[in-house]
Amino acid sequence: MMKTKGYAALAAGADLVPFEFERRNLGANDVGFEIQFSGICHSDIHQAREEWGTALFPMVPGHEIVGVVTAIGDKVSKFAVGDRIGVGVFIDSCRKCENCSRGLQQYCLEGMTGTYNGYERNSDQIAFGGYSNFFVIDQDFAVKVPSNLDLAAVAPLLCAGITLYSPLRHWGAQPGKKIAVMGLGGLGHMGVKFAAAMGAEVTVLSHSKAKQEDAKRMGASNFVDTKNLDWHKGFQKGFDLILNTVSADIDLEPYLSTLRTDGTLVVIGLPGKPYSVSAGTLLNGRRSIAGSMIGGIPELQEMLDFCGTHNIVSDVEVIKADYINQAYERTVASDVRYRFVIDAKSF
Amino acid sequence: MMKTKGYAALAAGADLVPFEFERRNLGANDVGFEIQFSGICHSDIHQAREEWGTALFPMVPGHEIVGVVTAIGDKVSKFAVGDRIGVGVFIDSCRKCENCSRGLQQYCLEGMTGTYNGYERNSDQIAFGGYSNFFVIDQDFAVKVPSNLDLAAVAPLLCAGITLYSPLRHWGAQPGKKIAVMGLGGLGHMGVKFAAAMGAEVTVLSHSKAKQEDAKRMGASNFVDTKNLDWHKGFQKGFDLILNTVSADIDLEPYLSTLRTDGTLVVIGLPGKPYSVSAGTLLNGRRSIAGSMIGGIPELQEMLDFCGTHNIVSDVEVIKADYINQAYERTVASDVRYRFVIDAKSF
Repeated sequence: MMKTKGYAALAAGADLVPFEFERRNLGANDVGFEIQFSGICHSDIHQAREEWGTALFPMVPGHEIVGVVTAIGDKVSKFAVGDRIGVGVFIDSCRKCENCSRGLQQYCLEGMTGTYNGYERNSDQIAFGGYSNFFVIDQDFAVKVPSNLDLAAVAPLLCAGITLYSPLRHWGAQPGKKIAVMGLGGLGHMGVKFAAAMGAEVTVLSHSKAKQEDAKRMGASNFVDTKNLDWHKGFQKGFDLILNTVSADIDLEPYLSTLRTDGTLVVIGLPGKPYSVSAGTLLNGRRSIAGSMIGGIPELQEMLDFCGTHNIVSDVEVIKADYINQAYERTVASDVRYRFVIDAKSF
Repeated sequence: MMKTKGYAALAAGADLVPFEFERRNLGANDVGFEIQFSGICHSDIHQAREEWGTALFPMVPGHEIVGVVTAIGDKVSKFAVGDRIGVGVFIDSCRKCENCSRGLQQYCLEGMTGTYNGYERNSDQIAFGGYSNFFVIDQDFAVKVPSNLDLAAVAPLLCAGITLYSPLRHWGAQPGKKIAVMGLGGLGHMGVKFAAAMGAEVTVLSHSKAKQEDAKRMGASNFVDTKNLDWHKGFQKGFDLILNTVSADIDLEPYLSTLRTDGTLVVIGLPGKPYSVSAGTLLNGRRSIAGSMIGGIPELQEMLDFCGTHNIVSDVEVIKADYINQAYERTVASDVRYRFVIDAKSF
């Protein structure tokens, strides 16, 4: 067993505090690694505050994890000591259903095993996440991080990055396509970078006009201030794809009206209330609303390789562990450009 | 000008009454034909009663029209006198936008020209629909009817038929796919026949258990009584595609939960209220909700040829013109198996 230091919420809504625990001994297929950086995802906050249903405590959040391999099990061939490694939103799955067989572990029919806020698969051991200084993972559920990327800025790719990369690939972002990104936050800023790198024309739809320059720097061709309630009138049937990263409750109808024939609005955020969608808006142009959730292991690796090739990382603010609770408050207030990342040396 | 006898609503909500009017003289590209049968679509009733916004009166409804060609213009090559001909929901479009260029006239960016309840394109002449004994149409907006099919039972294919055929083709109905049809009425019964003929496994989701035998006869493998509120628990992640023909206000959530990964629920009916859709249900399996509206001219012809090959027609009850108002009442009450068709000799 490996002594590990991290930060945990000991009860729903409690401040995160220093917490020591043990990681399992390395199995034959396991990789042990020293965590270097761990991203803060808004979903960490929802779960630590038990806003998404009953949660499991003590909770060590964190599912945007990067580090350097320090030990490998007897049967590990994918990694060597010294390799840069990443772990995302899940640490295991059934490995045999039709979705796992296709590399879509995020849609495992038995349910993926989350990186925290649950138990390790077929075990009564609580799974502790990335807000810590050491990790053990089956090699099949970890990915390699290209050597040219800044490791701190890579961490958010493991959740925020793949959450945008996957729908862009699935719905065919490419030259000639017009793509809108709703909201320029931790998720949205990755969508802009990826869609632009894939060659699409990118429009940011945001109510924060102060972010206009950032949007352009990240690759957006257009920035639309949605505080102007008539914004959509100039974009009727204009977009092939809209990625909705906004988790606030909003009226989707104006956005749907800007979809071209056969266009799709992909929902990524999880608002508190259901959306209201009128059939007529969908019928008029064979439009779709779809959902998308992170990505599978093969796609996670594909994304990191794509990032290596295109030199894409997240815009981050690196903090120490004792700033986590303040970072939570600022994340809820959208006061971060664009993602907090914890320096794991500070645990 | 050609004297024509039909039935019209003279004002919103008024009973339909005998009505005489004139069709235009044949242009070079026009076909004139004697109408044999005209189907009654629920949308005729919505429009005659002005339930879908302001309507235009006098209104001769009808957009499921079949007949036999009696005259052709100088430049007509597609039809000869004596040919069986069909006309559906639109009689013209801009003919040059990106959708018209792809044969998707139903999504014409300038708006298709409806068969009734509007004006002929670029004209102040009211467009009168199929509840009449004669019709004039540009050859490019009419289709050929295979000789082996019963003409009365063909009429509903021009709207109800294509409305189901098009999404089944677009979303890939084929052997190995599991498809559910919500509602077994004028629309739904065509969906069952087409999906079965395309080789898919068809399940009917209906609250009318009395229709179970009909569903089987039409090709359904399964019939589910949705009056059992727990029906969906046995079908979680079971269907690749669901076609929703129900225009009543219903909760889609139980239906969405029965979609497999990457499955789509296609909305065809137009309920009065918007749907309520939770993001989580879409995210969990990359599910979609889409809309679909009739089909373009090339697909309309493809469907009729498919019907000729597979000997598919609508189940109809043929009526005389003086029964139209009663037929409307019975249609609203879902008391028809499965579509009323007016014998045009009775106008």
